[in-house]
Amino acid sequence: MAKADGKRIRRRTRRTPVGASPGTLIADPAAQRTDLTLTLLSPEKVRTVQNAGIGDVVKNLDRWPVMWLDCSGLADIALIEEIGQTFGLHPLALEDVVNTGQRPKADFYDDHAFVTLSMIDDAATQRYEQISVFFGEKFVITFQERKGDPFDPVRKRIAVSGPGRLRTRGADYLAYALIDAIVDSYFAPIEVYGEVVEKTEDEMLHAAQRAQMLQLQQMRRAVNVLKGVLWPLRDALSALIRNDTPYIHAETKVFLNDTLDHAIRLIQMVETERDTITGLIELHLSLLQGRTNDIISLLTIVSAIFIPLTFLVGVWGMNFDPETSPWNMPELRAYYGYPAALVFMAAVAVGMYVYFKWKKWL
Amino acid sequence: MAKADGKRIRRRTRRTPVGASPGTLIADPAAQRTDLTLTLLSPEKVRTVQNAGIGDVVKNLDRWPVMWLDCSGLADIALIEEIGQTFGLHPLALEDVVNTGQRPKADFYDDHAFVTLSMIDDAATQRYEQISVFFGEKFVITFQERKGDPFDPVRKRIAVSGPGRLRTRGADYLAYALIDAIVDSYFAPIEVYGEVVEKTEDEMLHAAQRAQMLQLQQMRRAVNVLKGVLWPLRDALSALIRNDTPYIHAETKVFLNDTLDHAIRLIQMVETERDTITGLIELHLSLLQGRTNDIISLLTIVSAIFIPLTFLVGVWGMNFDPETSPWNMPELRAYYGYPAALVFMAAVAVGMYVYFKWKKWL
Amino acid sequence: MAKADGKRIRRRTRRTPVGASPGTLIADPAAQRTDLTLTLLSPEKVRTVQNAGIGDVVKNLDRWPVMWLDCSGLADIALIEEIGQTFGLHPLALEDVVNTGQRPKADFYDDHAFVTLSMIDDAATQRYEQISVFFGEKFVITFQERKGDPFDPVRKRIAVSGPGRLRTRGADYLAYALIDAIVDSYFAPIEVYGEVVEKTEDEMLHAAQRAQMLQLQQMRRAVNVLKGVLWPLRDALSALIRNDTPYIHAETKVFLNDTLDHAIRLIQMVETERDTITGLIELHLSLLQGRTNDIISLLTIVSAIFIPLTFLVGVWGMNFDPETSPWNMPELRAYYGYPAALVFMAAVAVGMYVYFKWKKWL
Amino acid sequence: MAKADGKRIRRRTRRTPVGASPGTLIADPAAQRTDLTLTLLSPEKVRTVQNAGIGDVVKNLDRWPVMWLDCSGLADIALIEEIGQTFGLHPLALEDVVNTGQRPKADFYDDHAFVTLSMIDDAATQRYEQISVFFGEKFVITFQERKGDPFDPVRKRIAVSGPGRLRTRGADYLAYALIDAIVDSYFAPIEVYGEVVEKTEDEMLHAAQRAQMLQLQQMRRAVNVLKGVLWPLRDALSALIRNDTPYIHAETKVFLNDTLDHAIRLIQMVETERDTITGLIELHLSLLQGRTNDIISLLTIVSAIFIPLTFLVGVWGMNFDPETSPWNMPELRAYYGYPAALVFMAAVAVGMYVYFKWKKWL
Amino acid sequence: MAKADGKRIRRRTRRTPVGASPGTLIADPAAQRTDLTLTLLSPEKVRTVQNAGIGDVVKNLDRWPVMWLDCSGLADIALIEEIGQTFGLHPLALEDVVNTGQRPKADFYDDHAFVTLSMIDDAATQRYEQISVFFGEKFVITFQERKGDPFDPVRKRIAVSGPGRLRTRGADYLAYALIDAIVDSYFAPIEVYGEVVEKTEDEMLHAAQRAQMLQLQQMRRAVNVLKGVLWPLRDALSALIRNDTPYIHAETKVFLNDTLDHAIRLIQMVETERDTITGLIELHLSLLQGRTNDIISLLTIVSAIFIPLTFLVGVWGMNFDPETSPWNMPELRAYYGYPAALVFMAAVAVGMYVYFKWKKWL
Repeated sequence: MAKADGKRIRRRTRRTPVGASPGTLIADPAAQRTDLTLTLLSPEKVRTVQNAGIGDVVKNLDRWPVMWLDCSGLADIALIEEIGQTFGLHPLALEDVVNTGQRPKADFYDDHAFVTLSMIDDAATQRYEQISVFFGEKFVITFQERKGDPFDPVRKRIAVSGPGRLRTRGADYLAYALIDAIVDSYFAPIEVYGEVVEKTEDEMLHAAQRAQMLQLQQMRRAVNVLKGVLWPLRDALSALIRNDTPYIHAETKVFLNDTLDHAIRLIQMVETERDTITGLIELHLSLLQGRTNDIISLLTIVSAIFIPLTFLVGVWGMNFDPETSPWNMPELRAYYGYPAALVFMAAVAVGMYVYFKWKKWL
Repeated sequence: MAKADGKRIRRRTRRTPVGASPGTLIADPAAQRTDLTLTLLSPEKVRTVQNAGIGDVVKNLDRWPVMWLDCSGLADIALIEEIGQTFGLHPLALEDVVNTGQRPKADFYDDHAFVTLSMIDDAATQRYEQISVFFGEKFVITFQERKGDPFDPVRKRIAVSGPGRLRTRGADYLAYALIDAIVDSYFAPIEVYGEVVEKTEDEMLHAAQRAQMLQLQQMRRAVNVLKGVLWPLRDALSALIRNDTPYIHAETKVFLNDTLDHAIRLIQMVETERDTITGLIELHLSLLQGRTNDIISLLTIVSAIFIPLTFLVGVWGMNFDPETSPWNMPELRAYYGYPAALVFMAAVAVGMYVYFKWKKWL
Repeated sequence: MAKADGKRIRRRTRRTPVGASPGTLIADPAAQRTDLTLTLLSPEKVRTVQNAGIGDVVKNLDRWPVMWLDCSGLADIALIEEIGQTFGLHPLALEDVVNTGQRPKADFYDDHAFVTLSMIDDAATQRYEQISVFFGEKFVITFQERKGDPFDPVRKRIAVSGPGRLRTRGADYLAYALIDAIVDSYFAPIEVYGEVVEKTEDEMLHAAQRAQMLQLQQMRRAVNVLKGVLWPLRDALSALIRNDTPYIHAETKVFLNDTLDHAIRLIQMVETERDTITGLIELHLSLLQGRTNDIISLLTIVSAIFIPLTFLVGVWGMNFDPETSPWNMPELRAYYGYPAALVFMAAVAVGMYVYFKWKKWL
Repeated sequence: MAKADGKRIRRRTRRTPVGASPGTLIADPAAQRTDLTLTLLSPEKVRTVQNAGIGDVVKNLDRWPVMWLDCSGLADIALIEEIGQTFGLHPLALEDVVNTGQRPKADFYDDHAFVTLSMIDDAATQRYEQISVFFGEKFVITFQERKGDPFDPVRKRIAVSGPGRLRTRGADYLAYALIDAIVDSYFAPIEVYGEVVEKTEDEMLHAAQRAQMLQLQQMRRAVNVLKGVLWPLRDALSALIRNDTPYIHAETKVFLNDTLDHAIRLIQMVETERDTITGLIELHLSLLQGRTNDIISLLTIVSAIFIPLTFLVGVWGMNFDPETSPWNMPELRAYYGYPAALVFMAAVAVGMYVYFKWKKWL
Repeated sequence: MAKADGKRIRRRTRRTPVGASPGTLIADPAAQRTDLTLTLLSPEKVRTVQNAGIGDVVKNLDRWPVMWLDCSGLADIALIEEIGQTFGLHPLALEDVVNTGQRPKADFYDDHAFVTLSMIDDAATQRYEQISVFFGEKFVITFQERKGDPFDPVRKRIAVSGPGRLRTRGADYLAYALIDAIVDSYFAPIEVYGEVVEKTEDEMLHAAQRAQMLQLQQMRRAVNVLKGVLWPLRDALSALIRNDTPYIHAETKVFLNDTLDHAIRLIQMVETERDTITGLIELHLSLLQGRTNDIISLLTIVSAIFIPLTFLVGVWGMNFDPETSPWNMPELRAYYGYPAALVFMAAVAVGMYVYFKWKKWL
């Protein structure tokens, strides 16, 4: 959720230095320590190895129907390269794993697909985390920027579901389940956005304040960033469905289609939010302008009523000498001069008030 | 129709919790009690079973050319699952039935199609209801969120039309008739919107008030939501027409094409309404600004006329001592001093008035 | 042309009631009496039967190379249905004929095409009229909502052109000629719009008034309606050209391409008009705002000059008692006190005037 | 270049009257006298016949590899029809030649192509001229609305280049050279537009004046018209390149591709210009508003400082009678009353000034 | 980065004069002296010839697997033509090399491709430089407008990487490396833009000033220019990947795809920047307007409080003669007249203050 203190978290893309040989892996100095978790699945049993080493991977290779290697933290470049070589991953893909901040996309190689996804890691600061997923006929490899496991629900399903779909189907179904968990993780923050916008609207209609404009502008920016992430996500999912690689089975595509549906729904929610925010910004400007107009109108009324009266009292405050001429301000010496003057001025004031009422300006 | 009290009905999408196994049905706590209505159609006769049980369905299966099972209320998950198993419906589709708030869409399975539609359930509060339609070679199954039957006109046609088209043609024609009824149900609320907008315009041109701006913003939001529903509706209809499944016959596609035509017309009506509303919002701002400008202009006229006069009466109210010098305010002792001063001030006022008239500022 | 009294003619679509069997014809209560005009064409001769009956149609069927049946007024549903049966027209198409206000479109059946067109019937009130055209190998049938014949120029060409193209070519060429006449009928009102806009612009630059804003908003709405009619018209013409039905010959497509060209030009004219109107609305707002700014500037000048002067005369109007102290307002008793005060105040006024001039505020 | 006097040159399309037989040529009453220039090209020699007659054309037909007939002025309908018959041009194409103001387009017939182009004839008044080009295997025919030869550079190249490409290649290369000359003729006026916009920007930043807004609006309109001409021009060039007619050779298409490139660059220049103008209009509004805001701020300062002071001098100008009560205005008789009052008022003024400075309002 | 002094660097396209024979090379008078650098690559060794002549090129032709000729400065037209003839480059392509300011694009000839790229040469003045790249089976030729080598990183990689990919792969891989270096060179300036925008935003929120608006407008223009360069760049890269020429190998396309990815990311960054700038411009207007509204509100408060008080002191400053009537201003002679008047006026002032506070106007 957008913070009101005007601080902006930029989504930066890390890059290999200009001209470096493509496929060169260079660790982000801020990257977290790398931890491997190996999960081995067969219809009969499941085995999980925490803090696994590359040796655990190698010795189980091809001995289980599905192997899932989850790598969190991208600091250990050597280990990542070793993983790449073990599974035959493309160097350019590995480069994209390490240089986080990539657009969501799906690339297809001969025996594995590479999917990059973004996830809102921390809604409060709008921090995004890149999740990279490789999957082939028998393996799924996931890379996360930070600890904190978006795949926990999937792990639970593996653990509890007995010989359920997650165990009996292939690696592509596991990859689908992981991707689906990432896509669905967007619903919560987008709904929070919606509530923040709604709250801002309520506050605004109660009392429009300048701080709300700032907040709305930040919300709009946050929503634009979201849109910029969700559109390529949608395209990546479409590419997974349309592609004719042997390691994505037709049955899995039915499920991916459901995920694509969710992504489209997310985009629609974001677009609607954007339209709402734009409408609120316009409304806010109109409310603030309306308040100024009210204030100006009041000034007009007060001025328009008192300025002529002030002129009148000024007239009767002039010092024309009554002794040199009978024409010089005889009213000042009239018996009812003062009360008559007061009554006259009251009449002028009331007349103007009535005129403004009639004009609907009051 | 948009309510003026600023309350917003959100179209929320219910979701299976993140990471739950796809196809898991979880009832919405707010869902209504489930009621089944079974309608059995053959060219010769029609039978309707109110409050049917799953047993009624099973025992009539495949014994009638067309079976229509209408299920209103989505609370009874077990029953819905049983229906799914009886007809071989896909679990993901059933999930979309229960998790209401889906985008309109059409999915195609080997022996049945699944169409999700939205319907304006209550125009006053802009509440939408999801209608799900499954249909195969011999059956149509409809799921409604709430009682209150949008299919009543179709039931009547079945009852009265004798061995009409609705009975002689297959399940796809019945499905078309039901979908057509849903699509046509949009015309009335959209026309009501049009009338509300027109009324707001009339009021606005008579007297622009701030409440109208709010109402227009709400109308715009309502129209945007409609657009967000009608576009995917259009796509779903196109998909039904383009698809090459054996259970949608060519003759039915001619009729679906007509429904698509209606959907396109609805979209055009909504787009026109949206343009009108945007124009009115601009006009409203311009009218309000115009009123403030009028008020400011008045202030200017009044001030510009009286400020110099007030200065003049101030001059003649100064206390320069006429006794110490003949130069000190001799006009105060002139015989026609006061009348001359009044005439001079009147001349200044008239001169400025004429100047403003000439400048077209009055 | 948009009328300035703020009255809006809505383009309403008539609809068969929700849930009615598709293809049911229900007459619009406001429909005009139906009149048939039968024109029979062969290269050698032409015969026209005014106020023809269905009998005239039946007995000439297939005996002339081209038969054109023009039906104006849509009140006589029974007659229209009889025509439909005689020529084998599709019931859904006939429904669209009777339910006027359809989007322009082209539908293709096995042996005839059905084209719906819109025509500006009365530019002053922006009333549109739906023209429906059916044509097959040997017949053209046209339906008009109202008398008043947009096809008169074509009739004249038939009458005068001797054994010209209109007689020797088939029904598709006649249909093209009729459609072309409808499309070309848009040029005149769009050019009138252009002139109205230009006139409004001239008036506006001479003296911006609020009524012009209303008029521009109405023009924009009218132009938007036009755009909403011309785009589907364009699509319908494209469909006619691209389609591979035997009853539209290649030579006729060259001519239809020319009509399509005209339609594209019309769209471009309308888009240009729309841009111009949007620009004028912005300019108008800016002109009005400019006038208010001028008025405010004047107020500022007058106030800024006189407010300090009024303060000064107020100072010298104070009643500090010169008799109790030599410090109390000695200037009031100076020999040149009054003239000096006047000169000082004049200097202040001139100084401020020069300052404003220098600031380019005057 | 847009003229500042608010006069608008409309691009009107001439049309054959509604319902006239397509292909009927009717001269524009304002059309110029028709002049033919015949240029005959072979690799060995070139011959040019000024003021040629149709006889010159007929007798040289098919006797030179390339014949170029340039026809300027469209008044002589009979001659144009004769040319059409001689070369077998399509009547609809000839109609488009005579009814000037067509959108740029390319039509393809069996043995010749027909390209319509627009050219800025007079940048000062934004007058456009339609150039029509027909070309087949052995001939190029060009029609210009007015004398003044945009093809002069090509003539020169023919004259000077000896047995250069223009002579050795076919008619399609000559047509390309002519079309390229027309397309390139847009660069100069668009660059002039850019300079005018830049100049307006400089003036505006120096001193924003209302006339600049008008000029910018006109520039925007001119640029919109240009865009409306260049987009179809681009499409026409694409059509020429993509088409598979035998009379456009592959080598020529490489050159046409270069022309297409120029057209795309022109469009980009125009789009950039448009964005710049829109930005300047916004900036202008903001500058004007800024000036008004400055003036208003000044008024506030002056008023806010003097209004309380004027109140104070008013207080001490009241006539409460000191003789009836010691409470009645004793300060008027204080020894330092007047100087103290002046000092107090100065302190108030300085205090407010400091306050405004602190608030950054000054 | 946009400079704040309002100076605009135009991206001008040099052109061959209208009507000149296509392929004519004419040097830009401002072009720099031409320098050739020849680099010869084989898996075994590398040779670099500084200030090479055309002779060096000819004698090494076809004797090395890959020859890279880098030509910086475009003044020596004769030399460029000689290079063209030596490698069989197309004259139109050479024309585009010399006439700098071309849109990025990729053209394909029988045995070589021609890629035009733009590069930000000097971010401070937004100067762009055109880089042209030709490559065939065995050669790469690059043309730069100015010295200052964007290819330095690639040279280093050639030098240091031993028998690395750059040496063992073909000319297409070298061309890819050079193009990739150009594309990646955009990241730095775009990130600088982002920082400038962020800094402007911070300043703006601290104190909105008119100069910031100008800066934002210039940033927007700079970003628009960038967008206009990056979109065709993206298209050129797509064309390289999609094309089926023998001299671009499938393995190289995988790498080009990575470059395309970078280009898409650049476009997204630029679009985001643009949205941010547009939002900031709106925010700036709203902040400035907010300040004016604050000032106006203050004026209203001060005026509305003091104007009635000034009226009151005016009343008691009137000169109605108490001696002629007991009705004439008896309060002036009341014992507590003056204190009561002061208290009354204070009460009025406090009352209005409270009213404004309650209205939330203060």
